[in-house]
Amino acid sequence: MKFNIALLAGDGIGPEVINEAVKLSDAIAKKFNHEITWTPALTGACAIDAVGVPYPDETHEICMAADAVLFGAIGHPKYDNDPSAPVRPEQGLLLMRKKLGLFANVRPTFTFPSLIDNSPLKRERIEGTDLVFLRELTGGIYFGEKGRRDGGETAFDNCVYTRAEVQRLAKKGFELAMTRSKKLCCVDKANVLETSRLWRETVQAMEKDYPEVTVSYEFVDAVAMRLVQWPNSYDVLITENLFGDILTDEASVISGSMGLMPSASVGEHTSLYEPIHGSYPQATGLNIANPLATVLSAAMMFEDAFGLKDEAEAIRAVVNKSLEQGIVTEDLAPKGTKAYKTSEVGDWLVANL
Amino acid sequence: MKFNIALLAGDGIGPEVINEAVKLSDAIAKKFNHEITWTPALTGACAIDAVGVPYPDETHEICMAADAVLFGAIGHPKYDNDPSAPVRPEQGLLLMRKKLGLFANVRPTFTFPSLIDNSPLKRERIEGTDLVFLRELTGGIYFGEKGRRDGGETAFDNCVYTRAEVQRLAKKGFELAMTRSKKLCCVDKANVLETSRLWRETVQAMEKDYPEVTVSYEFVDAVAMRLVQWPNSYDVLITENLFGDILTDEASVISGSMGLMPSASVGEHTSLYEPIHGSYPQATGLNIANPLATVLSAAMMFEDAFGLKDEAEAIRAVVNKSLEQGIVTEDLAPKGTKAYKTSEVGDWLVANL
Ligand SMILES: CC(C)[C@H](C(=O)O)[C@@H](O)C(=O)O
Ligand SMILES: CC(C)[C@H](C(=O)O)[C@@H](O)C(=O)O
Repeated sequence: MKFNIALLAGDGIGPEVINEAVKLSDAIAKKFNHEITWTPALTGACAIDAVGVPYPDETHEICMAADAVLFGAIGHPKYDNDPSAPVRPEQGLLLMRKKLGLFANVRPTFTFPSLIDNSPLKRERIEGTDLVFLRELTGGIYFGEKGRRDGGETAFDNCVYTRAEVQRLAKKGFELAMTRSKKLCCVDKANVLETSRLWRETVQAMEKDYPEVTVSYEFVDAVAMRLVQWPNSYDVLITENLFGDILTDEASVISGSMGLMPSASVGEHTSLYEPIHGSYPQATGLNIANPLATVLSAAMMFEDAFGLKDEAEAIRAVVNKSLEQGIVTEDLAPKGTKAYKTSEVGDWLVANL
Repeated sequence: MKFNIALLAGDGIGPEVINEAVKLSDAIAKKFNHEITWTPALTGACAIDAVGVPYPDETHEICMAADAVLFGAIGHPKYDNDPSAPVRPEQGLLLMRKKLGLFANVRPTFTFPSLIDNSPLKRERIEGTDLVFLRELTGGIYFGEKGRRDGGETAFDNCVYTRAEVQRLAKKGFELAMTRSKKLCCVDKANVLETSRLWRETVQAMEKDYPEVTVSYEFVDAVAMRLVQWPNSYDVLITENLFGDILTDEASVISGSMGLMPSASVGEHTSLYEPIHGSYPQATGLNIANPLATVLSAAMMFEDAFGLKDEAEAIRAVVNKSLEQGIVTEDLAPKGTKAYKTSEVGDWLVANL
């Protein structure tokens, strides 16, 4: 098969981790007889520096024309202390999600047996955890009307959801649950919010179309607790944009393997794959960042965007092997053991595929 | 001194845990020569059953006339599966907060040396944790305009904050920080929300009035992570209503002592003290609920509402003694050891004061 992949390396360590994912993807393509064309494009702080906006039209066109987008990370410290700066890297992220129609963010949290002791949680709490959040990504309070009144003394943000928005996200949730343990948890705050009541009634009405799926409804505050207490009690969770932002980040640290967690954002026009970690500015250029989350995001891309399960499994298998053999960057290397460079890990993966 | 305390036992185990706090408070009053008048009033499901509304006017008048309110818990399973029922216990809670002007919810999370192994976190992560959240409690998306459009197909919730609302909450945060380690963290989502930008700029403008306080600004998703990773890196945190709902619950479970965590809600007219746990319906009437969170809430009341530090310390000291000697309810009793009844724990506290 032939693929055209948009390559958005972004800022900070983005280019370094993307580089390793490209190397391994090319090796996979060679091994399985595919042909990948990579089309690089600018986004984030580097796009602001180059052309003044964080998500240039040209980048958008490249993404729209691609079979999938592989994304690194964006953000630069020079924007960190002033969240009201007129142009910011994150705006590019939000614009990209909206314009590409990436309405569902797929965020798995799972554990690696060899890394379980890295978790802040006790072993018996975290062992066996394997959950997936589906976070709504193009609606809610992120994209509602916002502004000031009373000469700037009053600020407002509007949270809006339509039934159709909830349905298309929930549909993905039910479908995903069908491929897993058939358990779906709808996370809301229906005891307080009208949008949450719309979420809940919409999901309730869909239950009859998926009679095999057991649906539970939990308040967001209760989920924030149970994620720390019994993360392995969850399987597929669906939720709205802001709750998803908070809970997926909380979930990402419980595994102790945040540097390894991949994600996908799927939607109307294309799909995008990215590590969940940020641009880690302090490490830029040092060749020390962990490339595995990006490599595993590429695995998700092969499986979900291209339907190539064997290719995805080959990537996951070699990643597991590298972890077992301790071919890891400094964030995962136990004290007193050798830490490998970003590019060395990538080279090892290619050589051991 | 003479105090008039409104007693809102509420639903489920509320009356049982309140009962022990009253016993101990009366013993404290006797020992330190105070006189307490308790005025019981209805709220929650029991108020709906009795008079059709969850926060009756009579209850409100009793609270307004009181020097403080001691609150148990509300909620009943018959309302759990239908968050859009026309009358619900939680509405009473929200109405009470609003009508009593309880704009600041004070939620400490701390550890007890003898209970540290109950935490889902590893010992080295949780040890030394001693933080306090100040959650804004009468504004934001909880109280903004909400409703439906397009024949019910679109739902909306409006989040609104005024500068004055942020200032009065932040002022309490700065003042609290001054009495502790002088570290204040403002939790927001200023990279996305206009209300968060108002929060941030308002707190930034107040920094000059508290030159000794070191203020940090963190995004809510980052805090959701760090609370699990390094909870002992936080001291005082201030945040808006919905973020506070999620994060204070997350924080409450990391200590492993949720059944012991007290809280206060302070504001314009009076202040209210309550355990953070819920009404625990399954345990109702069994005399097994842990009364210590309510007892420690009474300690907060003595200290903060009445300015009686010795009385508060006396309560905390006897609670510590009970924990050390294993005079605890079944939630805290290690397997194979004796669990005491709710009322037995209360009796022991009174006898050992
Ligand atoms: C950078 C920010 C706007 C973004 C979000 O809140 O969606 C990030 O936290 C994420 O989760 O991808
Ligand atoms: C019951 C509910 C309305 C309430 C809230 O969200 O404020 C509760 O979760 C709390 O934190 O006191």
